[in-house]
Amino acid sequence: MPALAVRAVAQRGLASRVSKRANTEVAGRAAVPFAVAFHHRLHYTEDVLGADLDVLTDVLEPSGDQPARVQFWVDGHVAAARPDLVPTLARIGSACPGRYASAGEVQVVPGGEAVKNDPAHLERILGAIHDADLDRRSYMVVVGGGAVLDAVGFAAAIAHRGIRLVRLPTTTLAQGDSGVGVKTAINFFGKKNWLGAFAVPWAVINDASLLATLPDREFIGGFSEAVKVSLLKSPEVFARLCRDASKIRRRDMAAAMPMIRASVEFHLAHITQGGDPFEAREARPLDFGHWSAHKLEPMSGFSIRHGEAVAIGVAIDSLYSSLAHGFPKPDADRVLRCLAGLGFTLDHPLLRDTDVLFDGLEEFRQHLGGRLTVTMLRAVGDPIDVHEVDDAKMRQAIEHVSRFRLGPESANGDHAAPRPSGPNGAS
Amino acid sequence: MPALAVRAVAQRGLASRVSKRANTEVAGRAAVPFAVAFHHRLHYTEDVLGADLDVLTDVLEPSGDQPARVQFWVDGHVAAARPDLVPTLARIGSACPGRYASAGEVQVVPGGEAVKNDPAHLERILGAIHDADLDRRSYMVVVGGGAVLDAVGFAAAIAHRGIRLVRLPTTTLAQGDSGVGVKTAINFFGKKNWLGAFAVPWAVINDASLLATLPDREFIGGFSEAVKVSLLKSPEVFARLCRDASKIRRRDMAAAMPMIRASVEFHLAHITQGGDPFEAREARPLDFGHWSAHKLEPMSGFSIRHGEAVAIGVAIDSLYSSLAHGFPKPDADRVLRCLAGLGFTLDHPLLRDTDVLFDGLEEFRQHLGGRLTVTMLRAVGDPIDVHEVDDAKMRQAIEHVSRFRLGPESANGDHAAPRPSGPNGAS
Repeated sequence: MPALAVRAVAQRGLASRVSKRANTEVAGRAAVPFAVAFHHRLHYTEDVLGADLDVLTDVLEPSGDQPARVQFWVDGHVAAARPDLVPTLARIGSACPGRYASAGEVQVVPGGEAVKNDPAHLERILGAIHDADLDRRSYMVVVGGGAVLDAVGFAAAIAHRGIRLVRLPTTTLAQGDSGVGVKTAINFFGKKNWLGAFAVPWAVINDASLLATLPDREFIGGFSEAVKVSLLKSPEVFARLCRDASKIRRRDMAAAMPMIRASVEFHLAHITQGGDPFEAREARPLDFGHWSAHKLEPMSGFSIRHGEAVAIGVAIDSLYSSLAHGFPKPDADRVLRCLAGLGFTLDHPLLRDTDVLFDGLEEFRQHLGGRLTVTMLRAVGDPIDVHEVDDAKMRQAIEHVSRFRLGPESANGDHAAPRPSGPNGAS
Repeated sequence: MPALAVRAVAQRGLASRVSKRANTEVAGRAAVPFAVAFHHRLHYTEDVLGADLDVLTDVLEPSGDQPARVQFWVDGHVAAARPDLVPTLARIGSACPGRYASAGEVQVVPGGEAVKNDPAHLERILGAIHDADLDRRSYMVVVGGGAVLDAVGFAAAIAHRGIRLVRLPTTTLAQGDSGVGVKTAINFFGKKNWLGAFAVPWAVINDASLLATLPDREFIGGFSEAVKVSLLKSPEVFARLCRDASKIRRRDMAAAMPMIRASVEFHLAHITQGGDPFEAREARPLDFGHWSAHKLEPMSGFSIRHGEAVAIGVAIDSLYSSLAHGFPKPDADRVLRCLAGLGFTLDHPLLRDTDVLFDGLEEFRQHLGGRLTVTMLRAVGDPIDVHEVDDAKMRQAIEHVSRFRLGPESANGDHAAPRPSGPNGAS
């Protein structure tokens, strides 16, 4: 702190008496702006627990002259699919004692929403942090899907007001979207992410090999967020997703990985350059399609996964945008075909329960606070924030999605409009 | 976000294939720095629930075209001392329905460390937030001492990742120190502030009338932090505290309030200009005297209050600074006389339990993380960070404090050195 400023403040404090005049003076002063500096580290690897291990160990800074202390956390789903994972992490933890040291056993938590739904898991994670005497210069390295990253990350955020968190996302969804984000949360009062904290991860490492054991359903799951962000930011990326949808569905990594990377880079830019990473203002421009997605998940008892719910939500809001905001209908149809081409099911029976689904609008408003703000599209790459939703048009959009299936030729849905002339109509 | 940057990112994402070359390129990139913007609002009032009510209502911004929604929280100790408080807040809550609206009943929580020691209180606070459907644009206005501000603040920080918090501190300690801070916490695993979050309050209002019902012991309690911050920042303020100690002890508000104000302004400057409000780096220059204070509180079963523990801790580290870091012995003696003159008891029997007290050093290190960093003094206004503590000298300092009492003439302690020649030896 500049010594001069401090001295000035001291003098002001000393000089001011408790008087009506002084009160008025100070009460009227404007809010004092200040900034908190953070760093974000995003790395890409092909085999982070093998040939590329140095990328992981390089982010673990020693604490003064002491080795970095590291606690490993693993998603139970991933541990089951890769029986070598826990022993590998244990071996890594003790491989380089002068550089870093493992703080106790490798920890496994249940995968999927289960870890976020029962607060007992949060307590267990906090207990393990306490038992291992982790401190603010220690690291929690968490290998898992988005739900596990969320729950372990929330515990890391509130223990000692913040243990350093290194995320190794194991799903396309977490690699392309939430893994790079600054949010942590668990579900509470039966509501998704009701309890949580904004916390910047120490580092995120997107590793291709960690996706290898992902079931097909989960592999596809992440690409709805890629479609979403491309609709908001880039006609080129959207066109490429449309073109490569079937390749991605067949897990052609040369087609898939660039799309995950495009998605995560958009998200990182939004965080580091968007000006409002902790969402203090009202709009959240990356939440396109999410009001209904956030509701569909609990409506289905979480049998609809987040990425699948986002696919449906993006389909609904794309059609709504075409009905209410001039988004070209052929583009809305491209969105639905692209999502279906990637392998998403859009015609979920829960969409018939329109009144319950509509409650999602109010819950979405409430989670963000203030007046309702949802993002819609005027064109691909041209989003608009709106504060009112036309009930009849939204019902029409939902109804359309609830009956959508790709036809046998797969390129034309049952509501498909004539295809634009360019390759996938890239604008 | 600048459209150009987004486009560039998209192109980079599109252009890069998953290849060893591309990986190396990106893996080697530096951490991406970014900043999060906050505002801090600090106001001073004489009668915030009466004549100065507009200062409170002015910070409650409407949410779009809706009135601000406000939930009032009250410290049980304050509610007991001021039976009119809860009805007054209820009346305020319904006084101006077009401008703001009370979200349910005025809520009362236990005062003092009790509210931080039992997680059931946290759950109850979260439950009330949920029942009232508060959102991120709602306000929790909390009237109470530091412990209540901490616990209610932690709940506010993690519900929906942050409800707006307006603090009305009711102790000299909270008005001069913690109330303006960016920390929230509860005790967990028997450790002080083990669970918590950094969160910038929406506004802080330091009101003189709220101190009126404070017991003498609590009134004095806040001035150890004023002594502490003056020792770090300002010989002038320290000299004035020495001079006015007995007036402040007698609750002469004309002497007391400027010292609270000087203290809080130093703290605010530290937060907004110090460059590290969320304590990402290792030093915490405002934590002078706190390693032992944080240990004495639980050692005493919290019968020693925080301000009292800080007085003892400041006395110990002042003497240690004179033994190890060239802090003039006459100044160390002035510190002890000043604290005793304010009414603090320094010779607590727990100081004989030196080995247990010493555990506080390691716990302090651990809470902050990394290597041990404690602040010591070379002179009044000239602090130094040190990373090692001389065991024998520290024991000597503790021993000295454990036997310190002001003599009957009150200006000379039993270990008092000859007084410097100037008025209180102001340097």
